[in-house]
Amino acid sequence: MKIIVIGGNGTIGQAVVKELAQRHTIITAGREHGDIKVDITDKKSIEKMYQTAGKVDAVIATAGKVHFGALTEMTDEQYQIGLQNKLMGQVNLVLIGMHHINNAGSFTLTSGVLSQDPIRYGSSASMVNGALESFVLSAAIELPKNIRINVVSPGVLTESMDSYADYFRGFVSVPAARVALAYSKSVEGAQTGQIYKVE
Amino acid sequence: MKIIVIGGNGTIGQAVVKELAQRHTIITAGREHGDIKVDITDKKSIEKMYQTAGKVDAVIATAGKVHFGALTEMTDEQYQIGLQNKLMGQVNLVLIGMHHINNAGSFTLTSGVLSQDPIRYGSSASMVNGALESFVLSAAIELPKNIRINVVSPGVLTESMDSYADYFRGFVSVPAARVALAYSKSVEGAQTGQIYKVE
Repeated sequence: MKIIVIGGNGTIGQAVVKELAQRHTIITAGREHGDIKVDITDKKSIEKMYQTAGKVDAVIATAGKVHFGALTEMTDEQYQIGLQNKLMGQVNLVLIGMHHINNAGSFTLTSGVLSQDPIRYGSSASMVNGALESFVLSAAIELPKNIRINVVSPGVLTESMDSYADYFRGFVSVPAARVALAYSKSVEGAQTGQIYKVE
Repeated sequence: MKIIVIGGNGTIGQAVVKELAQRHTIITAGREHGDIKVDITDKKSIEKMYQTAGKVDAVIATAGKVHFGALTEMTDEQYQIGLQNKLMGQVNLVLIGMHHINNAGSFTLTSGVLSQDPIRYGSSASMVNGALESFVLSAAIELPKNIRINVVSPGVLTESMDSYADYFRGFVSVPAARVALAYSKSVEGAQTGQIYKVE
């Protein structure tokens, strides 16, 4: 398969590439790194990325920014960061990618454990992750050409615990290599409309 | 209690008012109807509404617009309607209302069955409802002054089946009066961070 991994240079992205490159042709894309430069908040940039990549069999999105902050201090504008970047960035990868993906291709998006298991300062991440998971349930029943869509909901990464442990006390961390298996299941399996929790 | 119901003139809003007015002082607010006019997409209008209402013990939001359309035809702009109206409208009612609600007051928001049980043309509603539910889980652990927050997730209303039956074939409809009980439980009970599904 020919697979494009947006956010391929991130911690999850690298693990996904390592897992899937053993069996498939991988194109990476990202804001600063990767075979193709892309800004997922810019629909023209997404369109250009797909045109450069040519037809693909799978699209994996591991990119997306949200703002973390205390609920009592969060502003509308700070929620918009997550809505326009991690949420609509990934959704636009689907809306535009629909026209560039082969029949029976697949989209795999990325949400996160905070949709169900919140932490302090994480209300925007919770919101965006919940939105992505429900969007995927819904998109799965409407995608044309037998295209599938799933979302991986990773727990806090073991590789990120040095920076984030204080925010995730008591959470069981998961190695990125194990999270990568969920993307493999989504791309190489046949399911659709699934939320793969890796916690 | 003094309770403000935003969207108090809608099908759910009217049922909520009928249920709660038996025991409490109700102020209704809405874009076109109600004791106070409010546009929930306008933060200044929300601020003005709270100033007009004075301190309240409970805020109930039953308002919010989303765009329905086929996934293959939906645009970013159409998803923004739901994100800025039903989602951020309700979230801003919380962010701003935090400063106008009494200690131990409560917010009750409204999502909907499509977060978990999608229909054709409903991907924006699914997205927004999922976002609201995860936001509420998260906000519940950070709200100050013992303020509580819950969300009611109603199924398709019996009162709306004349218009919507074709989109909701096989769904069990629920009367607005039964949905209103969930708002009563949220306001008059003591729980927080709950998703009350009424299906």
